[in-house]
Formats: sequence, structure tokens, C-alpha cells
Amino acid sequence: MADILHRVGIRSPLNEVYEALATRDGLAAWWTNDTQGEGKVGGRLEFRFSADGVEIGGFAMKVLELHPRELVLWEVIDGPAEWIGTSIRWRLRREGDYTIVLFEHQGWKEPVEFMHHCSTKWAIFLMSLKSLLETGQGAPSPNDVQIGDWH
Amino acid sequence: MADILHRVGIRSPLNEVYEALATRDGLAAWWTNDTQGEGKVGGRLEFRFSADGVEIGGFAMKVLELHPRELVLWEVIDGPAEWIGTSIRWRLRREGDYTIVLFEHQGWKEPVEFMHHCSTKWAIFLMSLKSLLETGQGAPSPNDVQIGDWH
Repeated sequence: MADILHRVGIRSPLNEVYEALATRDGLAAWWTNDTQGEGKVGGRLEFRFSADGVEIGGFAMKVLELHPRELVLWEVIDGPAEWIGTSIRWRLRREGDYTIVLFEHQGWKEPVEFMHHCSTKWAIFLMSLKSLLETGQGAPSPNDVQIGDWH
Repeated sequence: MADILHRVGIRSPLNEVYEALATRDGLAAWWTNDTQGEGKVGGRLEFRFSADGVEIGGFAMKVLELHPRELVLWEVIDGPAEWIGTSIRWRLRREGDYTIVLFEHQGWKEPVEFMHHCSTKWAIFLMSLKSLLETGQGAPSPNDVQIGDWH
């Protein structure tokens, strides 16, 4: 098993960062504009991505846990085979002027090349989250920063 | 053991990407301006970082392997305790219009919070490498993109 780990510090209140992770509107503003579904515990969230106007894939998550201002936990229930059954955990805490986000995409079976890609791409989306909260402007799909030949 | 993995695709020739990883001048243009030492096999490279004019730390690497246009491998021999003994591997190959960079920072003893930070920061520096090669302008320390309260 292998995990993708990230950490960013965001100069925004804990509750605002939590809302950006726990609500459909929040998620749509930094990850992908095409976010559908129910953000509450037991709900299913669907994230679809496109490039040049063409849909290129997506993920569905079951919301396993929500602890306001502290934790969001998803299980991946649909998407690329490598993602299914993995979990995505967001932990929040306050540190000085920053809300610290600890991100873990856990339970990859193998450290395949696609995992390398997803690790870098998650960092880019975490910077989109940070930008959304600090400046009001994220860079969700389809306007996400491209990191190479895979989208 | 835990590893940091990343992948970017760069629209530049293989030999140019290799030079940016295998030479002191190349490294100084995307990672840290303060890069010293010998880039050849068996040599020691020193990378020092500063913020607001104050030195905040650094790393020393022993160059273990250099395979032009294919591979660069370093062992960390000085720096934060969590880094010492880890290795950093850069693998390159051509794919369509892109040079693909597969990055691995291998052998972390524990997935500590500092590893989360370093994972995100490596992604940011890989985007600096990509920018250097595609636009002529990287963002090495001390002008690196900040990701939070840790520098």
C-alpha cells in the first residue's frame, strides 16, 4: 500500500476551509466545476473533469466522515481502477495565522506511474484551494493548471 | 518506508531537461539559487535556502548515478534528520511532444507531517523546473512559491 501526502497552510479561518471541502459549492470552486451530489455523511459526490470541452473522466466518493473544522473523509467508489477502494482524508487544524490542511490519499495498491501523476496533480489542486480561500479565485477544472501530457 | 512520487511532462527536449537536473547551473535555475558543488558522479552538491534574506536550511546530496537523458540519482547526506539516508531519483523518457519526468524521493522512515510538506513543495519545484524549460523562467528559492507557514 502507498499513500499520497500533502500539506498546505492557508491564511483563512478554519470554518471557511472546512466549507470548501465539505460542501458541493466549495468543492466546485477549486477542484472541478462539474461537482454533483450530496455532501453529507453517507452521500455520494461526483466529480467530472473535461478538457477542450470533452469529458475526460471523473470520480465518485462516498462521504464517510465529516467533523466540522477538523476532518473530511471520503471513500472512492467509482473512477479509475487504481482509485477504487482508496480513501481521501482531509485533516484541519489552526497554527498561528494559518489553517493547516493535511491531505492523505491512502491505500494505493501499487506506486504506479498514474499515482505519480495524481500526487503532483493533487498538489496543484491544493494550491487552487489555497488560492480560492486567500484570493477568492480558485483554478478548478476545466481551468486547472496542466502538469503534462496527462489530463 | 514511504516515498514521495511525482510526474510532470515538459515540452522541452530530453537533453535540456537532463541538463537542468545534472548540472549546478541547471539546478540553481529552478530549485535554489544557492547551489554549490560538483555535479558529477561521486560529487557532493549543496543546496541552501533562504527566506527574507535569512538562511533557513539546506541539503547536501551525493551524486550516485548519472545516465545522460535517462536518470539522475542522489543520496541525501546532510540536512534535516528525516532526509538523511533517503534517495532522490529522477527518471526521464520521451513521450510524444513531452519529456516525462518521474520523480521519487524514497526511503522516508515515517510519513511525518514534514513529509507531507516536502511532498507538496517538491510538486511546486517540479512546476518551477517545467516553467524554466518551457518559458526560460523558473522560480527557485528565494523566489519560490510559498505553500504555507513552513519554508
